[in-house]
Order: sequence, then C-alpha cells, then structure tokens
Amino acid sequence: MLNFGLTEMRLVTPRDGWPNPSAGPAASGADIVLEQAKVYESVADAVADCEHVYATTVRKRGVTKPVVDPAQAAAEIHAAPGRSAILFGAERSGLATEDVNLARTILTVPINPQFGSLNLAQAVILVAYEWSKAKDLAQPPRTELLPPAPQEELEGMIGHFELLLADSGYYYPPERVAVTRLTLRNLLTKPGWTAQEVRTVRGVLSAIQGKKQPKG
Amino acid sequence: MLNFGLTEMRLVTPRDGWPNPSAGPAASGADIVLEQAKVYESVADAVADCEHVYATTVRKRGVTKPVVDPAQAAAEIHAAPGRSAILFGAERSGLATEDVNLARTILTVPINPQFGSLNLAQAVILVAYEWSKAKDLAQPPRTELLPPAPQEELEGMIGHFELLLADSGYYYPPERVAVTRLTLRNLLTKPGWTAQEVRTVRGVLSAIQGKKQPKG
Repeated sequence: MLNFGLTEMRLVTPRDGWPNPSAGPAASGADIVLEQAKVYESVADAVADCEHVYATTVRKRGVTKPVVDPAQAAAEIHAAPGRSAILFGAERSGLATEDVNLARTILTVPINPQFGSLNLAQAVILVAYEWSKAKDLAQPPRTELLPPAPQEELEGMIGHFELLLADSGYYYPPERVAVTRLTLRNLLTKPGWTAQEVRTVRGVLSAIQGKKQPKG
Repeated sequence: MLNFGLTEMRLVTPRDGWPNPSAGPAASGADIVLEQAKVYESVADAVADCEHVYATTVRKRGVTKPVVDPAQAAAEIHAAPGRSAILFGAERSGLATEDVNLARTILTVPINPQFGSLNLAQAVILVAYEWSKAKDLAQPPRTELLPPAPQEELEGMIGHFELLLADSGYYYPPERVAVTRLTLRNLLTKPGWTAQEVRTVRGVLSAIQGKKQPKG
C-alpha cells in the first residue's frame, strides 16, 4: 500500500486480533499504515462513511453489478466525488457473498483464463499500483539522458571513419562506393550518440590509426 | 508469472540449486513455469538469444540508458521485433551493476518517493500484469449486465408511483406538483433498472397499495 501512497487500512474482525506482532516485520517499514489501521466489527461499519464501495472478487457468476478492472477502478475513484473503499477478502476464502452485496461495483483483475491464482497481497498491489498512476507522488522516473551530439560533431566522426577506411581498401569496388558510404552513414547516425560518445568513438579511431585524434 | 500468461523463466546460478523443492508449494500450482525453467551460468548466457534486455532496478544514479516504467516496457516489448528479456535481481541485493550494464533499457516501477520497498515478487507481478494487458489471454472481465427496462415499462412504473402517491397527499402544494413530479421522474430514471427490477419495484408498490399489481 505505502509503496503506492495508500495509507488508510481498515480491518474487519482480524483473525489474530490487532495489533498483531507479526504485522510489523511483514510490513517492511510501512509502519505508518499499521499504526493508522482501524478495526471494525463488520464490513458495513468499515465502509459506512464511504460513498463508493468496490468488492474485489473473481466470482462473476450471477453478477448483476458493473465489473471493472484495476485501471478502470482507479479512473473512477479519481474522478468520483466522495470517498472510495476497496474491499479485499481473507486470503483463503475471499469476500463473503454478503460483503460483495454491499458494493456497487465488482473489481476484478484480468487474468490468464487457464491459470488464475492471485493471492491477497498480489490483488492489493495491483489495485494500489493502478491507483498510484494518477497521483503526483508516483512520478515516472526521470531519465538523465544526454542529447545526441550536434550534427557537426556527428559529421566529423563520419569523416574520421571515411578517412580511416579510405586508407584500408574498404571502399571497393569503386561502383559501390556511394552505397557503401551511405550504409556506413546510416549505421553511424542510428545510435544517436552523445557528444562524449562521439569523442570516445573518435578516440578509438585515432588509436586504430596509431596517431593523435585529428581536429574537426 | 502464469497469472498473466508468462511461462518462460530463466534462472542464473540459483543460490539453493535447481530444481528446488521449496519452489513447488510457493508456485501455487503454476508448475509449468517451474518445469520449463532453464538454468544458466551467467546473465549473459541467459539473455544470449534475446534482442531486447531490460534491467529492473531502482538505482538511477548515473544512468545513461533510457528508463521506462512497466507500461512503457510492455508497449515496447509488444511492438518490437525479436525476443525480450526482463532481468530481475536477487531479493536482497538486486541486480549487480554488471548485469544492469548488459541491458539497453532500465525498467523502474514509479513508486512513493517517501517509501519505496518493492520486493522481487512485487516487481515481477507488476511487470507481468502490464505485459498481459495487451494479450488476448487477459480478457477484461465480461459483465453480464442486463439492459435497462424499455421506456414503456419505465413509464408504467413512474405512473404506478404517481397513482400511489396521488392518493397519499404527496403532491402538495398544487403549485409545486410539476416540480415534484419531475424530481420523482429523474430519481426513478437514474438507476437504469432492468425490466426485472422494474417489476420488483412495482411489486413493492402493489404490496404497499395492499392490492394486486395493476396492468400497464
């Protein structure tokens, strides 16, 4: 939950009571979620102040409610006025039918029809992950990529290659020179090397030439 | 993995050897993934036949490779010709720097900047889940919702309400009748009740009336 910015956990008659000494280690440092957890006597009590209630379940038999996937649920939750609750059932039994009946919407993770075996933690993380996508706190990672070298430096490198190769007999036969040069140019343009990378390549070429890197 | 249709797992020098008797119970029935798992001596061997290699890591210091999130990676993988490999590190240590260096792209899950603690299983399921979205095998759940009742049946129900309420003194004072009727109509139109639900409502009204449900 906290990985994706969710902090408000509500527990209904937890089997092993609450606080539960096993919960701390399992939370891997997300102590704030445990500290703020509230315990309720019934699911109805737990969602009493929520305007929107989603029941996570895979059982679709006889469902007469809308069924949404985690991405759709996240979009609805962010768009809808009021508080939303997402109900998760116990690990083995899942949500009881009467708990599903409290909800207006069924939340189901689309899953391999030949093999579906999501556990509670997996269901929670997928729902939390989708919810987090619209939140500021889950910024996409910043890439620190440098831009490609300016064209002039790219041309300098291509010229350096051509100079080196001209001495090596690479451009043969003569009638293929134009095509060969174009092939080489396309190959060297494709990587989008940075100015530093272009300098590195020219250093390699100079080393192969056995002399200092020429200017330009 | 199998929840989202991925079956091809490659292991590099697994700490506890392979096959590992603990893996079966942990796989919750996804035995095919374990049976087909291949073991390699090095990461380079494991990805030798893959055209695209993604390294999952949160370490972004000094990254000079493109960084994508799971959704972007999934889009790239589905669009790109060739095989893609996604590298995951060991639970505690993550990927070694030299393993990250093998990859052309960094894959990072956007996460709460105040608390980031994804474990290996969580990273895998999020990547697999995003990958599965574009696959046929992960169909969005089919809703079996019935359509709203035909307008004629809706009108019949509204008329039934009005008949019942007319006898009850509900429409008072007279100058408010038009607004009151419109409010009631909007309220009864909003749910989009099915034909069966409309019949249920009319059964309720008839019971209140203390007589058989009228026709029409």
